[in-house]
Amino acid sequence: MSQADLPARVRAFVEAHCIPREDAAHVHDPVALDHALAQLRPVAREAGLYLPQLPVAQGGLGLGWVERAAVLEEAGRSYLGPGALNCAAPDQPNMISLLRQGTPQQRETYLEPLAAGRVRSCFAMTEPAPGAGSDPSMLRTTATRDGDGWVIEGRKWFITGAVGAAFAIVLAQTAEGPTQFIVHTDHPGFRLVRSIRAIDPFAIGGHGEIVFEGCRVAGDAVLGEVGRGFDYAQQRLEPARLSHCMRLMGRARRALELAEAYVNERRSFGDRLADLQQVQAMVADCHIDLHASRLMTLDCAARMDAGASVKTESAMAKVFVSEALHRVADRAAQMMGALGMSEDAPVALILRELRPFRIYDGASELHRATLGRRFLKASLGDQR
Amino acid sequence: MSQADLPARVRAFVEAHCIPREDAAHVHDPVALDHALAQLRPVAREAGLYLPQLPVAQGGLGLGWVERAAVLEEAGRSYLGPGALNCAAPDQPNMISLLRQGTPQQRETYLEPLAAGRVRSCFAMTEPAPGAGSDPSMLRTTATRDGDGWVIEGRKWFITGAVGAAFAIVLAQTAEGPTQFIVHTDHPGFRLVRSIRAIDPFAIGGHGEIVFEGCRVAGDAVLGEVGRGFDYAQQRLEPARLSHCMRLMGRARRALELAEAYVNERRSFGDRLADLQQVQAMVADCHIDLHASRLMTLDCAARMDAGASVKTESAMAKVFVSEALHRVADRAAQMMGALGMSEDAPVALILRELRPFRIYDGASELHRATLGRRFLKASLGDQR
Amino acid sequence: MSQADLPARVRAFVEAHCIPREDAAHVHDPVALDHALAQLRPVAREAGLYLPQLPVAQGGLGLGWVERAAVLEEAGRSYLGPGALNCAAPDQPNMISLLRQGTPQQRETYLEPLAAGRVRSCFAMTEPAPGAGSDPSMLRTTATRDGDGWVIEGRKWFITGAVGAAFAIVLAQTAEGPTQFIVHTDHPGFRLVRSIRAIDPFAIGGHGEIVFEGCRVAGDAVLGEVGRGFDYAQQRLEPARLSHCMRLMGRARRALELAEAYVNERRSFGDRLADLQQVQAMVADCHIDLHASRLMTLDCAARMDAGASVKTESAMAKVFVSEALHRVADRAAQMMGALGMSEDAPVALILRELRPFRIYDGASELHRATLGRRFLKASLGDQR
Amino acid sequence: MSQADLPARVRAFVEAHCIPREDAAHVHDPVALDHALAQLRPVAREAGLYLPQLPVAQGGLGLGWVERAAVLEEAGRSYLGPGALNCAAPDQPNMISLLRQGTPQQRETYLEPLAAGRVRSCFAMTEPAPGAGSDPSMLRTTATRDGDGWVIEGRKWFITGAVGAAFAIVLAQTAEGPTQFIVHTDHPGFRLVRSIRAIDPFAIGGHGEIVFEGCRVAGDAVLGEVGRGFDYAQQRLEPARLSHCMRLMGRARRALELAEAYVNERRSFGDRLADLQQVQAMVADCHIDLHASRLMTLDCAARMDAGASVKTESAMAKVFVSEALHRVADRAAQMMGALGMSEDAPVALILRELRPFRIYDGASELHRATLGRRFLKASLGDQR
Repeated sequence: MSQADLPARVRAFVEAHCIPREDAAHVHDPVALDHALAQLRPVAREAGLYLPQLPVAQGGLGLGWVERAAVLEEAGRSYLGPGALNCAAPDQPNMISLLRQGTPQQRETYLEPLAAGRVRSCFAMTEPAPGAGSDPSMLRTTATRDGDGWVIEGRKWFITGAVGAAFAIVLAQTAEGPTQFIVHTDHPGFRLVRSIRAIDPFAIGGHGEIVFEGCRVAGDAVLGEVGRGFDYAQQRLEPARLSHCMRLMGRARRALELAEAYVNERRSFGDRLADLQQVQAMVADCHIDLHASRLMTLDCAARMDAGASVKTESAMAKVFVSEALHRVADRAAQMMGALGMSEDAPVALILRELRPFRIYDGASELHRATLGRRFLKASLGDQR
Repeated sequence: MSQADLPARVRAFVEAHCIPREDAAHVHDPVALDHALAQLRPVAREAGLYLPQLPVAQGGLGLGWVERAAVLEEAGRSYLGPGALNCAAPDQPNMISLLRQGTPQQRETYLEPLAAGRVRSCFAMTEPAPGAGSDPSMLRTTATRDGDGWVIEGRKWFITGAVGAAFAIVLAQTAEGPTQFIVHTDHPGFRLVRSIRAIDPFAIGGHGEIVFEGCRVAGDAVLGEVGRGFDYAQQRLEPARLSHCMRLMGRARRALELAEAYVNERRSFGDRLADLQQVQAMVADCHIDLHASRLMTLDCAARMDAGASVKTESAMAKVFVSEALHRVADRAAQMMGALGMSEDAPVALILRELRPFRIYDGASELHRATLGRRFLKASLGDQR
Repeated sequence: MSQADLPARVRAFVEAHCIPREDAAHVHDPVALDHALAQLRPVAREAGLYLPQLPVAQGGLGLGWVERAAVLEEAGRSYLGPGALNCAAPDQPNMISLLRQGTPQQRETYLEPLAAGRVRSCFAMTEPAPGAGSDPSMLRTTATRDGDGWVIEGRKWFITGAVGAAFAIVLAQTAEGPTQFIVHTDHPGFRLVRSIRAIDPFAIGGHGEIVFEGCRVAGDAVLGEVGRGFDYAQQRLEPARLSHCMRLMGRARRALELAEAYVNERRSFGDRLADLQQVQAMVADCHIDLHASRLMTLDCAARMDAGASVKTESAMAKVFVSEALHRVADRAAQMMGALGMSEDAPVALILRELRPFRIYDGASELHRATLGRRFLKASLGDQR
Repeated sequence: MSQADLPARVRAFVEAHCIPREDAAHVHDPVALDHALAQLRPVAREAGLYLPQLPVAQGGLGLGWVERAAVLEEAGRSYLGPGALNCAAPDQPNMISLLRQGTPQQRETYLEPLAAGRVRSCFAMTEPAPGAGSDPSMLRTTATRDGDGWVIEGRKWFITGAVGAAFAIVLAQTAEGPTQFIVHTDHPGFRLVRSIRAIDPFAIGGHGEIVFEGCRVAGDAVLGEVGRGFDYAQQRLEPARLSHCMRLMGRARRALELAEAYVNERRSFGDRLADLQQVQAMVADCHIDLHASRLMTLDCAARMDAGASVKTESAMAKVFVSEALHRVADRAAQMMGALGMSEDAPVALILRELRPFRIYDGASELHRATLGRRFLKASLGDQR
């Protein structure tokens, strides 16, 4: 089946099913949000839009990265879209990790229900200060061998998706180095302390704080090889970032569409707002930001489809896109005046959703320093 | 009594009483917020910090504008401060309107309990599209003479302070022009439809939507002269804006203080964040923004104390300060990483509080166009 | 012959031949600049790098737009590069105009020597106020039929390339509408008044001011059809802009390379400048700006190769690229301190070269207003 | 004599005498510039405007810092103004140094003719890499005791005012630490190698490169105490910076005035440019930038008049003002289109004059890092 019309079909699905179900009551309410997603997923599956990122063998649509770009952007126009298609974080990167590093048994136990949308999951890496944040070497959660199993101790924080998750992929320090474990959330010693309310209102599964106290897991809880946890975490980061760019591009575009409709109608001091040059300039800058963001994202996608490294390009895209999309939403809110500040129009909520992207997956400042050093080192090489 | 130490005493009050009572549970909950303020006001009064903006004859501290600047900035470090001192919007400008335009009877009935903190009030000007927003000439709420009274019909929107207010100052169109009316909120025909949830989480009295349906008021409900409602609205705008600048400067400073404490402690990749140049530059830019904001605000305050017009200067200050303070809070949140995105630290909430100031009291774009035209016209004069 | 290595060969040519001939004495000296170019062209031709933009039939390399992008960027690393390859403005767009609209006779008389590099030319459209600037409808230069010829009267201004040009393509108003004429610069009635010194120091042929006084030309001086002069001018604009983006990308990259080399060596307060985070961040932002600029330019190039319209995309690229490249050069100059301000390092001169691009070929503000209106109108269509 | 009208009188002088003598032929021609200044100084003296910064005892107007602000701003509207009033850098800070650190003999020999405008001087601190730039500890020029005198060896670079200077105040390393020497420019061993052409076109005395080869000076060439050269250099920096802010504010204002006059006349697409909102917004932003710059400068001036330290405030002002004024000139140039790029209107030249201020007297990045560290350290103190 040709998939050239997939973005248009996703758009139609989002318009017909997701946007009408958007509800400010979902703000900071992961349970209500899960409920809405549960209603949407069968519709998405029926429409042949489900699981765009997984191979056909795993029930997905088997799209490459470039093909995925437009699909994820269209899905992202509603905060319900990616979850409805089951291509939202952190389940999406977790599925990819399980596919790559999971044993056949792990795939059956964890990947299958996750892909089917029967359960959700989370990825427990970040820790409160002075633990692992941007710098994973500060990892303080430990896993100690105990017979043929392991005992995990520590505290995780800002774990997106934790509320309502069936299992977590947990990064913990072992004698052999950082290691990934799969832990059921109802396992003894795993305790979800609370959901941290953050500026982004629609995080699926919220942002949990988790305590591991004498949490004993069996030997087959290790995902991938012992000691390679950081490598795996790094590997998931680039595709995760890129998927964020795609989905959030849709969020920003939605904000812009709403603002355009508003200024096309609203009058002030005798003029349609759309006839004012400052408004026109804001609209132009939004489109320029989106255009550049899309091109940088597609460039990474094409490189990934070609099997090339995107280490530098994905970091540049992350910095630019996260900042550009926030500018788009900020201008959209500004154009809509008081309405842009309210939850009546979703623009203020989109603005809140987009703010953390400049921090999650590596703060802009961290990327800038790393990129700068890398370019300066390369430049030294050029001169030799 | 010398008041030179007033800012320091306000700071001490805010540290001892307001900040400890700050609670994320107040987000979008005007009732809980009122409850907290009711507990704080007696303490503020006892400490001699209450009502800084009113004359001594009305029970205030009788401060001039320059004196008020540091007091309001210190109060603004907590979202509870201005309300505790009873110098928060919209009660503060309402008191000034009643003082200037009110009859002795109106002062006794409305100003006295407002100043005493027994009741709250609101100012009902803004209307949903296509009514009065930035452009007051689009006013659609009407007041029609009916015997010796008036009947008000219309819809108001984004009326800050409406939830829990005892009365509203309402702007309505009459045959003689726009006119201010004082209306009790329990008056027949006055209906608070709902509280509009907006991006700013701690608006005292929320942002109400109000419907006037056959709302009949007596002749003495008119505040000031019939037909001069816009003049009065304009008159309150400049001092209101300036007071916003002062209070919100405190909010932004608080965010910066929290970020400075964070980066002084937090380490990443072996460095204290405070030792990283990008962080240092962000801190420097925050202080520069605050310094310039303070000087522009003080310049207006001194002109107002001298009885001079601040038409141009207050518009320049509004544009600069509203944008500068948002930059400060945005950088503060960025410096704090994930914590800066959470409601654990109040920085993300402060960022949300500061965003609407670029719109409320006149969007930046409107001020820029007006200022530009005024300067260009003046420049023509120079050349003659 | 495969051309995959063409960019590398152009780079080698620029390094070996152009950069060593760069000389601050060329600043505002079109004659000295022409002299240098005359020496370089045979070398470029010998190296098979000459005339990348013309078809093979006209002696060019026959490159498509995407292929041209990297070649023009490499050539642009030196201000001598594009002229050496004979792909500099305004000769490049003039050749394309002659190719498209010229009669066989005109091609032989004008295109052939231009392509061969024996002569230079200019395009005389812009007029001093109140004549044609961004708005071509204000055209005041006239051409009146006189027997079988025309008499041209008027004044042109900021005509890049005029000093030393053999002929000009002139836009003049006729009874049938704006029309293009080819006029020899030694023709009676054509007078080059002066060369306007502008901020960009290395304009080939300077920026001339030209007066037409009773300038009688024969009927075959018309280029293309009478009355279609604006259409032709529009047609040349998009490719001209895109070529500017390509060439100037090379200028900005050169500035960045020089700054990188400088900060890799220079120490201050005990640190290499390259080890300072603010410097690293500036380097990262330069690369991000260049990367986004390149992708937007390539996107237009690919659309042009495919025969698609780039009306919107080329305007977005023009705005973004012109501003981004100026930021790159500005940061490069800043990183180099006093040296970055001097003509010793060419960075300050590159900064000056890049500034006018935000104005030439349509000021950013004009493009923003046009783009905004176009997007807003399209958005209205979406809603129907 | 009351001096309240001094700024207006300086403005009148600048309009009547300086602006008419402005000439693009002065670009990079210190000799022609000196010639123009020599004609203007007697007029300024006659008008009672000469030497605003020196005490009355030294023939100056004896103005305090706040009084000086408006005078220097008015003078700065023309690049000829400060030189005409003899309050231009580097003579102005040199006079202050001689006044503070000079012996009676040195004052007579050097200060008297300098104040009288018979000679010019320069301050030779900066060295080419790897010598002293922002970091004075890298000083490589040495002075070695030789009998009762000293022998100076080294190379100085970017020494503003060197061309045509009668003497230089030279910073050189001695066994006792950095020391200031006064050296006649015709002294054996002092060689002006060249004038470095920099982006700023009207530096009085250009930017010289100077070589000291066996330059033997007598013992009384030492200015101030041996070993205290850095302290003195630091002391001159803050007032020098502030004076730059004042003068350059005038340059930026001039650019804005020219742009305002232009957009008030020029039409495009049927509108006066002044009627376009983007232009209005640019004008507003220019005035806001100037207003904030002026307030920050005046705040420092008032502190200096009160004898307070301005270490932090002058660094904040330097960063803000240097960047704000450049934005003003950049917008002014942009508003004027092609004319703004030419030397016909002086705006492009003003833009070039303002660019180096972000580097001279300490690059913005250096100030940001220093300020950030200082604020962060102070914040630590607050928490104790």
